[in-house]
Amino acid sequence: MTENFEVAIIGAGTAGLAALREVRKQTDNFVLINHGPYGTTCARVGCMPSKALIEAASAFHRRKAFAEFGIRGGEGLAMDIPSALERVRRLRDGFVAGTLKATEDLGARNLAGRARFLEPNLLEVGARRLRAGKIIIATGSRPIIPEDWRSLEDRILTSDTLFEQTDLPDKMAVIGLGVIGVEMAQALARLGIEIHAFDRGSWVGNLSDPDINQTAQDCLETEFKLYCGATAELSAAEDKVRIRAEGVDMVVDKVLAALGRRPNLDGLGLEALGLSLDGKGVPPFDPLTMQVADLPIFIAGDCNQRAPVLHEAADDGHIAGRNAVAESPQCHARRTPMAIVFSDPNIAQVGRRFSDLDQAQTLVGAVSFKRSGRALAAASNRGALRVYADKHSGTLLGAEICAPQGEHMAHLLALAIQQNLCVNDLLRLPFYHPVVEEGLRKALRRLAKQLPAAPASDLAGCDAFGAEALD
Amino acid sequence: MTENFEVAIIGAGTAGLAALREVRKQTDNFVLINHGPYGTTCARVGCMPSKALIEAASAFHRRKAFAEFGIRGGEGLAMDIPSALERVRRLRDGFVAGTLKATEDLGARNLAGRARFLEPNLLEVGARRLRAGKIIIATGSRPIIPEDWRSLEDRILTSDTLFEQTDLPDKMAVIGLGVIGVEMAQALARLGIEIHAFDRGSWVGNLSDPDINQTAQDCLETEFKLYCGATAELSAAEDKVRIRAEGVDMVVDKVLAALGRRPNLDGLGLEALGLSLDGKGVPPFDPLTMQVADLPIFIAGDCNQRAPVLHEAADDGHIAGRNAVAESPQCHARRTPMAIVFSDPNIAQVGRRFSDLDQAQTLVGAVSFKRSGRALAAASNRGALRVYADKHSGTLLGAEICAPQGEHMAHLLALAIQQNLCVNDLLRLPFYHPVVEEGLRKALRRLAKQLPAAPASDLAGCDAFGAEALD
Repeated sequence: MTENFEVAIIGAGTAGLAALREVRKQTDNFVLINHGPYGTTCARVGCMPSKALIEAASAFHRRKAFAEFGIRGGEGLAMDIPSALERVRRLRDGFVAGTLKATEDLGARNLAGRARFLEPNLLEVGARRLRAGKIIIATGSRPIIPEDWRSLEDRILTSDTLFEQTDLPDKMAVIGLGVIGVEMAQALARLGIEIHAFDRGSWVGNLSDPDINQTAQDCLETEFKLYCGATAELSAAEDKVRIRAEGVDMVVDKVLAALGRRPNLDGLGLEALGLSLDGKGVPPFDPLTMQVADLPIFIAGDCNQRAPVLHEAADDGHIAGRNAVAESPQCHARRTPMAIVFSDPNIAQVGRRFSDLDQAQTLVGAVSFKRSGRALAAASNRGALRVYADKHSGTLLGAEICAPQGEHMAHLLALAIQQNLCVNDLLRLPFYHPVVEEGLRKALRRLAKQLPAAPASDLAGCDAFGAEALD
Repeated sequence: MTENFEVAIIGAGTAGLAALREVRKQTDNFVLINHGPYGTTCARVGCMPSKALIEAASAFHRRKAFAEFGIRGGEGLAMDIPSALERVRRLRDGFVAGTLKATEDLGARNLAGRARFLEPNLLEVGARRLRAGKIIIATGSRPIIPEDWRSLEDRILTSDTLFEQTDLPDKMAVIGLGVIGVEMAQALARLGIEIHAFDRGSWVGNLSDPDINQTAQDCLETEFKLYCGATAELSAAEDKVRIRAEGVDMVVDKVLAALGRRPNLDGLGLEALGLSLDGKGVPPFDPLTMQVADLPIFIAGDCNQRAPVLHEAADDGHIAGRNAVAESPQCHARRTPMAIVFSDPNIAQVGRRFSDLDQAQTLVGAVSFKRSGRALAAASNRGALRVYADKHSGTLLGAEICAPQGEHMAHLLALAIQQNLCVNDLLRLPFYHPVVEEGLRKALRRLAKQLPAAPASDLAGCDAFGAEALD
């Protein structure tokens, strides 16, 4: 017997829960189908446990500035890694428990199992057949592990297993220097582990601006060994892992694989939709409606591989959920792109990527934080940022950042870009003193000087003093 | 013989230097007259040395979270106060040196001495008489010390003398809990000094929102003893200071007087201008032009007591300098008001003060940071903020903040207020995850729910998940 629902949501992660919230406002006739552990990627294995570990590691790392500050006894500090990991799990369990509340009152409408499309409106879940007017795919993603590394078993960690460790060894490799690779390589190094980090390419933290990428590499290299442009070959070496790459042959205790995440779309039976899928198995969809082709299907969150970050997954789910219960799908303007790596200095990207800009039409304002007064006071004076603006209008287009407190400057720039502001609009902002945002102001002033018509008389035209204490 | 100048600037601090920068663009026929030490208040005795001390003190204070993070040995840490103070002076000397560059090429146009008005266009400096077409008063301010405390001599410190100390005693009082009092009371307490802090009134850090003021007091009270509504009477007790207030009778080693700053206008001969001065000796002036009454005189920076913070002093100087060489004074729109206390949590105020708002026309969105996911990960989960909006239009009016990373949220809100944005405009911003700015978003969402017309379909209408890991 086929059961009938108005809406079926596949996946109870961030996107699925956001969709559920919207669907429930319009109908009770829905079903949520989830395969695998409940609790979102963010809470279980992503944003939250990683931030908990990073904060502990960075607090320990700060001892390196103690002598400068006049604090004695820093050399007597030790990191109790099992205890730090235990705290990560304790916090994580609290965060996961919070997310579970979103589904606890669903009763029979919450179905544990693996869904498979038989037709665009028909799903199979175990022995059951569910027909739904609209179906939302929100199945998330999982870490990529190359097939030939599987034999190394638990010597290969991923973000799924890292936080489950009760202790960590003395020497590790991190393979892949995207967001997760950079954050965890630095955090593990700051815990006191000898880290060797490899990336096939030459970019770290998904940057695309060569200067900021170089700045980020320079900063990271002071804390762990970086091998860019190095393809690491792994093999077993007794109970350890041998790593060979150009000019490298070493043995490490464990490897963190941070090679990216693949969408959980295999096994969903998407071939029943009669669509051609892309190389990662993702069907064509409209990012403004989340609709898959012209089908009564929506795809939201990490599984669509558009922007695998929490707030975008939540927006995807919001849009998909609204459109699943709408007469016809409505377009939603998306937010200004923003990506943050919670390294120190923070790495961030806002608006358009440097590599996507027409360089002939773009002005750049750059600043280094080496002489930033506030950062000097905090002994955190490293990093740089570059802001991009249209060379005719001065409209802000984007920025790439590797700077202290960069996460906050990214939000400020995102607001400016979202509001379509130009360089001089942002220069009218009060920049308090002393804050790292004054570095951003310096970059903006350098941009303003390149623009054809600088304002003569408003406060956007204030110059720098050229004195660290005042700028 | 009377010397003639196009412009005379009295005071080589931040406002004077900003004015100088503008004046020099138009004329070489100027004179800069400075009495007392060169180098700005900010660099010598204000923003910069205080931030250097705060950073050291806060790095030491962080040991209290070490057990939570799994860091062992925190109990073996000790603060070497003489060394911390030495670093403060080393940094300060660098900052001061930077500011001195602005005047080093002036030669004879840089005059050390005390200026006194004889007529609106005529100054006396020692034996010299200087006539100037325009005169800019930028003489700054100095800490207030009550007359009857003078007998306590060097047992009374101010921000002028604090950073000159080679060591600090075990027990101190701080009198006055404005910006400087709050910052220094907390920093001194974090260095390990027993601090008793008094204020006659019931407000700390210049807040005006009762809830945020209470939050701030609750936070500060965990680190030092706070006596609000207490008028402290000081007397000598051998080589120490006896403090009596309602229910208090104690002896401390030294007292930091943080009772505010008075303008350096006495002795300037302002009575020669024929104007009535206010209670602090400040002549009437237009904050949009900086012009004093209808005279060829401008008044800029802390001495006008309008907004004694660096960026406003610089703007004052910029406006005064431009107008001193303009055919007629031009009005300049001022920046969105912003004030930050670099305490932890940061205290900040943006836009209109809560106490200045018409409560009947104002909606409030509040949030606590106790359950903020990011702040929990960082063990910095305390504080709150309240955002104010017009109840009809939803236009953002202001905010008062006592929150982790509040200084950055203050800038974001300042931009939103400066651009005249409403609550839903700001809710269209990407809020990355996990960041403290998500707390601000929660406050905005609470505001949005109170507004008449919430947007139905754009991303500003996303709800909270109600789960710490996701919000």
